[in-house]
Amino acid sequence: MSSDAAQRLAFVQSHLQVATCANEEPKKKTPVESMTEEREKATFDVRELTYFLDGGEKFTKIREKFMMELERDPTFRMYDMYDVTKDQIRERTMEKFRTIVHYVSAEPVPIFTMRMQTISLIDPGFWTRFGVHYGLFFGALRGSATSAQFSHWVSKGALALNGMVGCFAMTELGHGSNVAGLETTATFDEASDQFIIHTPTITATKWWIGGAAHTATHTVVFAQLMVRGKRYGTKSFVVQLRDTRTYTLMPGINIGDIGKKMGRDGIDNGWIQFTNVRIPRTNMLMKHTKVSRAGEVKEPPMAQLTYGALIQGRVAMVVDSGNIAKKAVTIAGRYAAVRRQFQSSPHDVQETKLIDYAIHQYRLMPLLAQAYAFHFTGVETQKLYDNLMDKLESTQPGDASMQDTLDTLKETHATSAGLKAFCTWSTLNAIEACRQTLGGHGYSAYTGLATTYNDFAVHCTWEGDNTILTLQSGRYLVSCYREALAGKAQPEGVSYLNHLDTLLNLGCGAKTNEDILNFDIIQEAWGVVTANVVKKAGDDFEASLKAGMSPEAAYEECSQARLAAAKIHSFGYIFRRFAQAVKSAPEGLRAILTKVCFLYGLYSIEQNAGFFLQYRYFTPSQMDFVRAQVNVFCREVRQEYIPLIDAFNYSDYMINSPLGVYDGNVYEKYFDQVKRQNPVGGEHPYLPLIQSLLRRDIEDDEPLEDDEEDEE
Amino acid sequence: MSSDAAQRLAFVQSHLQVATCANEEPKKKTPVESMTEEREKATFDVRELTYFLDGGEKFTKIREKFMMELERDPTFRMYDMYDVTKDQIRERTMEKFRTIVHYVSAEPVPIFTMRMQTISLIDPGFWTRFGVHYGLFFGALRGSATSAQFSHWVSKGALALNGMVGCFAMTELGHGSNVAGLETTATFDEASDQFIIHTPTITATKWWIGGAAHTATHTVVFAQLMVRGKRYGTKSFVVQLRDTRTYTLMPGINIGDIGKKMGRDGIDNGWIQFTNVRIPRTNMLMKHTKVSRAGEVKEPPMAQLTYGALIQGRVAMVVDSGNIAKKAVTIAGRYAAVRRQFQSSPHDVQETKLIDYAIHQYRLMPLLAQAYAFHFTGVETQKLYDNLMDKLESTQPGDASMQDTLDTLKETHATSAGLKAFCTWSTLNAIEACRQTLGGHGYSAYTGLATTYNDFAVHCTWEGDNTILTLQSGRYLVSCYREALAGKAQPEGVSYLNHLDTLLNLGCGAKTNEDILNFDIIQEAWGVVTANVVKKAGDDFEASLKAGMSPEAAYEECSQARLAAAKIHSFGYIFRRFAQAVKSAPEGLRAILTKVCFLYGLYSIEQNAGFFLQYRYFTPSQMDFVRAQVNVFCREVRQEYIPLIDAFNYSDYMINSPLGVYDGNVYEKYFDQVKRQNPVGGEHPYLPLIQSLLRRDIEDDEPLEDDEEDEE
Repeated sequence: MSSDAAQRLAFVQSHLQVATCANEEPKKKTPVESMTEEREKATFDVRELTYFLDGGEKFTKIREKFMMELERDPTFRMYDMYDVTKDQIRERTMEKFRTIVHYVSAEPVPIFTMRMQTISLIDPGFWTRFGVHYGLFFGALRGSATSAQFSHWVSKGALALNGMVGCFAMTELGHGSNVAGLETTATFDEASDQFIIHTPTITATKWWIGGAAHTATHTVVFAQLMVRGKRYGTKSFVVQLRDTRTYTLMPGINIGDIGKKMGRDGIDNGWIQFTNVRIPRTNMLMKHTKVSRAGEVKEPPMAQLTYGALIQGRVAMVVDSGNIAKKAVTIAGRYAAVRRQFQSSPHDVQETKLIDYAIHQYRLMPLLAQAYAFHFTGVETQKLYDNLMDKLESTQPGDASMQDTLDTLKETHATSAGLKAFCTWSTLNAIEACRQTLGGHGYSAYTGLATTYNDFAVHCTWEGDNTILTLQSGRYLVSCYREALAGKAQPEGVSYLNHLDTLLNLGCGAKTNEDILNFDIIQEAWGVVTANVVKKAGDDFEASLKAGMSPEAAYEECSQARLAAAKIHSFGYIFRRFAQAVKSAPEGLRAILTKVCFLYGLYSIEQNAGFFLQYRYFTPSQMDFVRAQVNVFCREVRQEYIPLIDAFNYSDYMINSPLGVYDGNVYEKYFDQVKRQNPVGGEHPYLPLIQSLLRRDIEDDEPLEDDEEDEE
Repeated sequence: MSSDAAQRLAFVQSHLQVATCANEEPKKKTPVESMTEEREKATFDVRELTYFLDGGEKFTKIREKFMMELERDPTFRMYDMYDVTKDQIRERTMEKFRTIVHYVSAEPVPIFTMRMQTISLIDPGFWTRFGVHYGLFFGALRGSATSAQFSHWVSKGALALNGMVGCFAMTELGHGSNVAGLETTATFDEASDQFIIHTPTITATKWWIGGAAHTATHTVVFAQLMVRGKRYGTKSFVVQLRDTRTYTLMPGINIGDIGKKMGRDGIDNGWIQFTNVRIPRTNMLMKHTKVSRAGEVKEPPMAQLTYGALIQGRVAMVVDSGNIAKKAVTIAGRYAAVRRQFQSSPHDVQETKLIDYAIHQYRLMPLLAQAYAFHFTGVETQKLYDNLMDKLESTQPGDASMQDTLDTLKETHATSAGLKAFCTWSTLNAIEACRQTLGGHGYSAYTGLATTYNDFAVHCTWEGDNTILTLQSGRYLVSCYREALAGKAQPEGVSYLNHLDTLLNLGCGAKTNEDILNFDIIQEAWGVVTANVVKKAGDDFEASLKAGMSPEAAYEECSQARLAAAKIHSFGYIFRRFAQAVKSAPEGLRAILTKVCFLYGLYSIEQNAGFFLQYRYFTPSQMDFVRAQVNVFCREVRQEYIPLIDAFNYSDYMINSPLGVYDGNVYEKYFDQVKRQNPVGGEHPYLPLIQSLLRRDIEDDEPLEDDEEDEE
């Protein structure tokens, strides 16, 4: 640089310096500074909370290892996921199989389950596609095949996913929840020792079959077993769909693509029609029902034992609800710490953070509390399930412990059904509520919650439609209530029914308003109200029976009451799980978790105020106190809400939203992502079209003028 | 045909005949028959109800003409809309401009508005893109330009959309609802008689600007007016963005594409940065604030008069809420009439229709009632708006009627804000609830409600974020309450505040449970509860003032109470609109509409039971009666619910969902659409990828065996 140039530069620089000084305004906090100050408010050790949530330091480390492995795997790149087409995403999803197949055989099941939970957070489409083979197809083999059959399919490659890949053909175009009503038939042909699998009508077409469109070589198909003209109900059969080398369809198989969906486009759902497809008799999965060479049908002694398989998926969805709820709150919460809007007072240097508005606290803090509640509920539900599986594996028909096992099965079945419905519904609403707290930016695909919503929504209708599951749960409650009335002790989940006489007549245990701020009182409040709501459903049911209805009709008649009972029961159940977890928390975490738990309890009461007033547990003035306390606890939790979110410990890669980044630098990262995915410049995509519109020859539209001479 | 062939055919036919007879099962109803029988239940004239809803036969005919014109316009083809990419849909949206531009100049405004309402039902992306030019850009000219300026831009082609097309640059990356806080500057340069438009920071980047990415040649930009170093607040300026022939960007303009969104991909939202862009002084829209050649700034006497423009969009969204709610209910309702699931009794020939389950009635019938309620509310809100516009146009500053006009403005502003928020939130929830009633099929893109959800969701955050609007509405209620306390008579919308003394002390007017089934009692119930909830907000506000807070801080402090007040107020307001409409209905429709209106009223009370019990308008036992009556009215409305849906009179083309077709032939049409969009056969999209996965060389993974000799 010439000395002349250097001088000019120095002049310009000093000039700029002066200009800056002259214009200097009072210092405003950058987004990053706005975030940093939130972290300084923590009164607890964030890392310790993470360990507590994860079940110990060891598991935190494992999860962090998974996150790093995923982030560095090019097939799992996420930055462009919001722009890929359905066809691209499906192909990319397939590419990911190879990595994960490696781990499925190398890792113990609980660890691999954690890996899949981590993946479900960023790529639910992959999670589903992989889960269709391992959870549904392979799970059906494990649950319904004899050990010889199981070995056969493992030797064909079902476990290693080498040589074959499976799907699960249950649902039909015209039949979903009512599995007994499926139309597909499996007719035994004694002469050839074969079953003939057949789709008799259009409504019998297998529908929504994940992996059928392009992936699966085999399927487990649910069909009506027909032997010698007699119908034995729905059983499962393995049918080959495609040549495992060329992928051409097998004779009699017709398959199509279901096409575009609301979300989870990574999974290739398809439809399947079978036209007199012949399979060997031994392709029927015969662990439970057996058909002999001679066509004799032997039915299982305890059909209920086969329900266990259904529960696994529901438990996974309860866990997923907690995980996704935490993700949604992370995005909305971090954005609220840096986004500023309006000045609270004209003297403020800077606009106010969203999170400092009472209403924003009221929108977000209860969702944060709920995410914690669902997290702990997921942990407990998983334990419930593991306990059931232990019992099922160790109990043989005829054992003395069989009744206990069946009771546990019944309870776990009902509890997981109710929680699956309640947690997926609540989480779907929470995602949307979080999305809306992002204001306009929530509508951008890149901010993540729109896609999260679309991917998550399917949880509400698959593997048991939520309404039907809720009704089942309500039916269980009614039956427990009737048992309790008859003096039979009820299990922990519905233990409030063991004190019906006391509970139904119990006034509020709080002498002063402040007494309400007590886990035992809140628990009692839920107990009293749930007992009353369940009683209402039970009494309605009883009244219908007395009026001469069949039990089925009576249950139908009280379905709205059952729905209410199941919902209220879930609130109380989840609060108990949360309160229990707080009690077991390390000393240093108990204060903050207690606040979060109070917020969950009080907010839930406020949302269901009608029942608490209806059954006179709380007076109107106590309810006013509850409402006021919700605000108080929103404000309390707000103080440390960023540390509470940080404890979820999701990396930026996992969050995949520029508005939810750890450092708070939201605007630059958002703008960068938009520009990266939509580079500026380049050709106009439809210039001639727009030019011809903007330069219309108006004369075209003008009518021919009357030729007045003609009129003469 | 040879006689031999004819004989063979006859033989085959008779053989088939016999086979059919032999297999004959008890006759089951086809989907079409299942639908037909619903239509036979109508006790009223469906066509008459359509006329009533549309405001007369004449308007029904006009709507039917629009639907036919759209259906026959190839650029408006809908069958493949669920599969097109973002780029395709944007181009196709542009193609549609030519048709609609033709009508915008040929049709009177009210008729053209009806046309656009019809279009918004099937193509909200187009509606938005077109609305950006005519509603926002052209609307801003009409509202804020002097008449000379207005003529100038019309002569440039702004009205005919010939030679230019506009967009509306208000929102910034870091600034949404707080328009006063926008950062973009418009600095007057006296020397050149120009404004310099400038984007000083990244957060000042104009963001979400519809039509900016590829369409607009001009924009109205909102910027801080700076004259001689003084800031005058946000004003609007016309800036050219692109050469109107070549579409190259003008100097100083930087534009990019916002990219993928949750929905409405037909509109090309973009971001804009201005870097010292110079425009003539006369490009500032000077109807209200004026800047002279000498740099004198003249501010308008009544800034409130400029709010009128905001209201139009909100009214349109209230109307859209009703229309979309009707569409969602049409799809879910028709499907529920033909979908069958489970047998109610083992003797049933056929599974039970979804709609015959009490719980399904409880899920759908209140949403049908709400769609009616929102329809009538839309009609009334439009009238309110038209009345306001008449007043605004006929009042000049200084007129004796000015105060009345300002009161009307204030009322309409608050009412439309509250209703926009309430109706769009409720409708979004209703769409999702309807989607879920389709079970698994709701997750298919082709069944329509997933897309409807994604398109509609933006209503909750744009043109006034719902939470902020609700708080504004709550603030209005608090101020009305305080005025009423001070003795000032309040307008019709909040007329319950004129009887505060009576209402706040009023016991329930119903002597018997049956007395509750009375429009006046329900209206009174809402009046009492709303008065109490508004009083609570007002008292909280007052208490904060007394505690020494500023009014702003006091409003902030009572924001949760304001939110509750605004919501409860909306329920009551909408019920009144509905009840009023029923009273004005033709004799033959009054019975059925009365039932629908009761259902809406009772269901709304049930949903807000907490407040009715809190303020002791209803006793717990009355509330039990209300709950029971909701079921009764669900059953009543269910009787004629298909005729009630038919009265909405949307053609199959408009519904664009195979599950919502008029004739009920849902399965065939659904399957046909899936196959049409995803033809069977063809090449596998990624055969080598899947082959290499399924035929892995397992040896690759095997470790080298230890060479034992080395160890010796």
